[in-house]
Amino acid sequence: MSPASQTLARNARADAEPSRQRPLDSFFTPQSIAIIGASPDAKKIRGLLQSLLQKNGYPGKLYPVNPSYGEIAGVRCFPSIGAIGESIDLALIAIPAPSVLPALEQCARAGVRNAVIISSGFAEEGGGSFEMQRDIAALARRTGMRISGPNAEGFYNEIGRVAATFSPAVDVMPGATRHIAATRRIGIVAQSGGIGFALYNRGRAMGLSFSYVVSTGNEVDLHIGDFLNHMVHDDATDVVMLFLESVRDAKSFVDAAAEAARISKPIIVAKIGKSDAGERAAASHTASMTGWNAAYRAVFAKHGFIEAHDPDEAVAIAAALTSAPLPNGDRAAVITASGGAGAWAADVLATSGFTVPELSPDLQAKIAALIPSYGSARNPVDVTAQAIQTGGLQRAIELLNEADEIDVIALVVSLASEHRVLFELEAMQAIIESRRKPVLVYSYTIPSEFGRGKMAEAGLPVFASLADLGKAARHLVARAHFIPPTEVKRRRFQVPPGLFQRASAKSGCLSESDSKQLLKACGIAFPDEQLVANDEELDRAMNEIGFPLALKIQSADLPHKSEVGGVKLAIADAEAGRTVYCEMLQNVKSLRPDAAIRGVLVSPMARSGVEIIIGAVRDELFGPILIVGLGGIATELFHDVAYRPAPVSEADALAMLRELRSAALLQGFRGAPPSDIAALSALIAKVSLIADALPEIGEIELNPVIVHPEGLGVTVADALIVLNHASSRRAPTKARPCMR
Amino acid sequence: MSPASQTLARNARADAEPSRQRPLDSFFTPQSIAIIGASPDAKKIRGLLQSLLQKNGYPGKLYPVNPSYGEIAGVRCFPSIGAIGESIDLALIAIPAPSVLPALEQCARAGVRNAVIISSGFAEEGGGSFEMQRDIAALARRTGMRISGPNAEGFYNEIGRVAATFSPAVDVMPGATRHIAATRRIGIVAQSGGIGFALYNRGRAMGLSFSYVVSTGNEVDLHIGDFLNHMVHDDATDVVMLFLESVRDAKSFVDAAAEAARISKPIIVAKIGKSDAGERAAASHTASMTGWNAAYRAVFAKHGFIEAHDPDEAVAIAAALTSAPLPNGDRAAVITASGGAGAWAADVLATSGFTVPELSPDLQAKIAALIPSYGSARNPVDVTAQAIQTGGLQRAIELLNEADEIDVIALVVSLASEHRVLFELEAMQAIIESRRKPVLVYSYTIPSEFGRGKMAEAGLPVFASLADLGKAARHLVARAHFIPPTEVKRRRFQVPPGLFQRASAKSGCLSESDSKQLLKACGIAFPDEQLVANDEELDRAMNEIGFPLALKIQSADLPHKSEVGGVKLAIADAEAGRTVYCEMLQNVKSLRPDAAIRGVLVSPMARSGVEIIIGAVRDELFGPILIVGLGGIATELFHDVAYRPAPVSEADALAMLRELRSAALLQGFRGAPPSDIAALSALIAKVSLIADALPEIGEIELNPVIVHPEGLGVTVADALIVLNHASSRRAPTKARPCMR
Repeated sequence: MSPASQTLARNARADAEPSRQRPLDSFFTPQSIAIIGASPDAKKIRGLLQSLLQKNGYPGKLYPVNPSYGEIAGVRCFPSIGAIGESIDLALIAIPAPSVLPALEQCARAGVRNAVIISSGFAEEGGGSFEMQRDIAALARRTGMRISGPNAEGFYNEIGRVAATFSPAVDVMPGATRHIAATRRIGIVAQSGGIGFALYNRGRAMGLSFSYVVSTGNEVDLHIGDFLNHMVHDDATDVVMLFLESVRDAKSFVDAAAEAARISKPIIVAKIGKSDAGERAAASHTASMTGWNAAYRAVFAKHGFIEAHDPDEAVAIAAALTSAPLPNGDRAAVITASGGAGAWAADVLATSGFTVPELSPDLQAKIAALIPSYGSARNPVDVTAQAIQTGGLQRAIELLNEADEIDVIALVVSLASEHRVLFELEAMQAIIESRRKPVLVYSYTIPSEFGRGKMAEAGLPVFASLADLGKAARHLVARAHFIPPTEVKRRRFQVPPGLFQRASAKSGCLSESDSKQLLKACGIAFPDEQLVANDEELDRAMNEIGFPLALKIQSADLPHKSEVGGVKLAIADAEAGRTVYCEMLQNVKSLRPDAAIRGVLVSPMARSGVEIIIGAVRDELFGPILIVGLGGIATELFHDVAYRPAPVSEADALAMLRELRSAALLQGFRGAPPSDIAALSALIAKVSLIADALPEIGEIELNPVIVHPEGLGVTVADALIVLNHASSRRAPTKARPCMR
Repeated sequence: MSPASQTLARNARADAEPSRQRPLDSFFTPQSIAIIGASPDAKKIRGLLQSLLQKNGYPGKLYPVNPSYGEIAGVRCFPSIGAIGESIDLALIAIPAPSVLPALEQCARAGVRNAVIISSGFAEEGGGSFEMQRDIAALARRTGMRISGPNAEGFYNEIGRVAATFSPAVDVMPGATRHIAATRRIGIVAQSGGIGFALYNRGRAMGLSFSYVVSTGNEVDLHIGDFLNHMVHDDATDVVMLFLESVRDAKSFVDAAAEAARISKPIIVAKIGKSDAGERAAASHTASMTGWNAAYRAVFAKHGFIEAHDPDEAVAIAAALTSAPLPNGDRAAVITASGGAGAWAADVLATSGFTVPELSPDLQAKIAALIPSYGSARNPVDVTAQAIQTGGLQRAIELLNEADEIDVIALVVSLASEHRVLFELEAMQAIIESRRKPVLVYSYTIPSEFGRGKMAEAGLPVFASLADLGKAARHLVARAHFIPPTEVKRRRFQVPPGLFQRASAKSGCLSESDSKQLLKACGIAFPDEQLVANDEELDRAMNEIGFPLALKIQSADLPHKSEVGGVKLAIADAEAGRTVYCEMLQNVKSLRPDAAIRGVLVSPMARSGVEIIIGAVRDELFGPILIVGLGGIATELFHDVAYRPAPVSEADALAMLRELRSAALLQGFRGAPPSDIAALSALIAKVSLIADALPEIGEIELNPVIVHPEGLGVTVADALIVLNHASSRRAPTKARPCMR
């Protein structure tokens, strides 16, 4: 089955009881809502809740609760939640923080099923009411009432017309028009109400459709994973957009992510906290620590999350996913009436990883027949302003749509005019309805509302940013090639007795030879090496191993052995070996008199090959995270690494290698023979199984792993294991384990 | 002088006669305009010209010319240009192509000083009227009349109210408001009218001001360099924006670029033709071949051009340059009332190369006093919605403006509302007027016209894209650190007689030993090496050079000697050397029986160091282009290279090295000693002088150059020279010279 023929969200249901999978149905689509702290003043947050619910035409029952009023905006107001006497699906709570817990107790007694605490002043920096949050969480557990917030901006359910929020983004403006360019719906889950509703605001302007927008607040009870789970299981939601500061409950999050991957529902994610400042802000904003981003990136990569780096990119990807089929490949055609704009679009698509191939002679001839002689049928296809007016544009798009040589069509036009669009709309609509590949529209002038509206009638959102169109198109291709992770059978491993006890008390590290012994016991092969402690052992070892060889100091206290002169490579003969041995011991002893030396490791020099680093680091939230990169500057200077949660299958290990920009080195770069990728993938998978199976291990690093040509396997030249107690609380500043 | 205290465009004038430096004054600000082919039908291009001139209030004399009309839109119409009988500064020509040349002849006879040929159908693909263009160019040379176009979209002079174009972008819309957020003006020169006026359309919406927008058309007489020269010498133009497909006249372009660098007038450039498709489009669009982009990038880098990769980036950079002072450094503060949006902005700034440092305790204390306890004074500074309304936002910005610890302030707010902005405008205006550093405003919701207008009153354009704000801010920092190129004293070099004649007839290459001999004659030092042709010479050479050593086959016919087994490194002793020598000769002779072998080069193995590639390639348009990159995958896989036109000074060579992402390797990466950058810079400068001085040379490549630790110099391990006749017509597909 080709990727394009897959529907994006098959939403295959294994369970016939949707309510089991979507316990938040009564939260998002309540039959009745009580507003605790309701107010007639629609300038206040408390007043806005009722006002926005009413303006948006909430179809259920509305119960304002405030002892000061008998009626608010034509609706009877109750003195207390208990006084309503009807079943309440959702309570919106907008009263001062100290009154919230008593109000929740009343809600629980009245049988309220769900609550959103809008009130803030709890655990955010300066709030100082950690205990109150703890008590609210306990109440939720005790009563079964599901509670969102505190410090939440509420939610909006577009289909059910439930504007349970004070966000001005869902205010209904008199006379405002709305264009619907894409009918497939986006669900937004955001750990910042400001951003959640800003994404909605931006997507709506582009003509996108939504299911829900929900702001998660401080997540004392309902976590982001609960909301994600709802979106994943909700048939009305075709694409999910996440704004993440940190995940508090890994299991619900990862389970929902895995289900999304299984049913091919795309998740767009923006994860902040890349910068130190970002981390600080996340901490102060929702009273949580931002996790180590590499672990997040690992989880995202595994489940095919699409990472967006700024709000426009997020919205652009959503626009592409909800309005276009998935492409089969990365061959783009640009069609335009402006040569300059078309050429620029071709450049941006090329930068985004597309080829923009010259069209075949046959296709060129067909297109040339539709356009004036001063146009171009090559690619970019310049139909000229004249052919736009005479219908040549539509027919050329039809030809590109039918052509097997093109996967994506970029239509580059000017939609600034407030009163006319130059092509015939009905013909365009028919083409778009029958399209087999993405047609993405870019207006090089700022598109007018009129222009956006006309394109929306044809089912096409208009991209106002060329860079974002390029990124969105690239993500469509990546999505088309995403393969859900394969199930991995976990393993158990037997660690040699006493080995963990030999770790350095200071660094938590095992020596290289102990690290290798552990890995050997788990089935990883190493070259024949000998640990020597005196001249006789050295001579015997050199004799058996042969030249050239390497000598390396062995001490659990010296994980960075090259920094103390503890590594000498390419030793050519026995005389040189003896000299190096003596000097090395002397040097190390004088530099680090405190280090316990176990001896010197005599190793054969590995045959040549491509150098790889394989590592695993245990993350507190997501468990062991596997890291693979090419050795040397590719990993360290260009941060060219791939991440996955351990364990991974060999197929997934291969997918990690393919993600590397430097993957070309493994495929036979500049005439070199292709590397033994099969052996490397097997080793990566094995390391991931070990990291998964042994909770004692905090970090594993194999560096370098030398990958020989196809059929010749790999050589693990060095290895380091750091135990968990020394490393688990430490988030590495660089996304890699303990490096020498 | 700190960068921030420099004004952006000092516009120091060496010449007291501006008309000499701006021969296009009468073109851009004509006292009288004739429209040849004028029409009363404002739906046609011919009619739009007069209509737009009138709507924009052109203050000069207007003469429609068309024998079919006595009057058009209230203005007397003349049957011919000769019938006007007044002096004409500018003729706009919009008649069919075959009539253009006769009309120009009439213009010349009537003393018309300048003409814009709007008409197309000349040399664009399919036009087939190459001869007509040639004749127009000849007429311009003969008569001194300056001619723009054909196939031009004309120009717009915003100050002089001259809308000499049919672009709808300068149409005057009834009731449309315009916000001016930045009063410093942008001049646009574009080789695509569509893009030129689209950039104007986008910049105008952001509240930017312009001097001129000019579309250059096919450039038969007036080239892009002429227009650039005008903008550079024009006091009303503070920043220039260029859209380039290709430069036809290198001298006028480079001279104007150099003057811009000298007077510190920023030039933003978008150069298309990166992709193959882009090149084809450029070719078909304006009948020119797009040049090799590396040569452009070299010229841009030398003169401090700021490269923009898409229209939004170009406009964002212009917005920053025309509205903000230059920053002293890269320490950013984010100030916001939305924790999530602030954290995302901090992330994007960090990705753009900024640090977002936690504020000093002192500054935090001052800010904390202005905001509620649930805000944050750390950075991002979250003043909360409450402090926006009570003035805390403005006072916090004032504190950040005064603080030496911050260089750039990003204000992150929501400006979606159509009727209110939450802070007090007058206080904000006062702060902005006295600001010492950039204050860049981002609205995370789509900014309303009202919001944009209010910020414009305070002198602040609003960025609607966070990514573009990050890029613009980064370019401000780069601009602040730009140092104009230093003057380089050119050199002459004596080439050993007969050496060029020894080049391979097939490849144009000199052998390694001949390449090195030439470079030695020019003063570049090489290790002592010996070219040997028999066993006795080999033994003698090995004895003198010592071990380990390298053997390399020498043949002008084999520039890629390692591909035929012609390179063996690290030979440990004489026995191994003899074996390798015999095998190498046998292998090469059997693989390439046609190659003329000059012998085998015996070289000492270089001491270790950082490997660098230095190259130069002669570009047909811009002359020899110098290329520097770190060896291995950094250059080849990550395209991490720096370009400059040759020659360069040692200071400029150093600037090239600093541009490399992998520059860290030279600065003592991970505990290694810093490299001898001084020796490397001297070598780069020397290579550039040689490439500049010897037109016979098409390519020079020194690869690898091994850079030793500070004070220990460099070793040029291999060198290749390719003569010009073999290489000058060939644009390398990769931006690097002949690689082995």
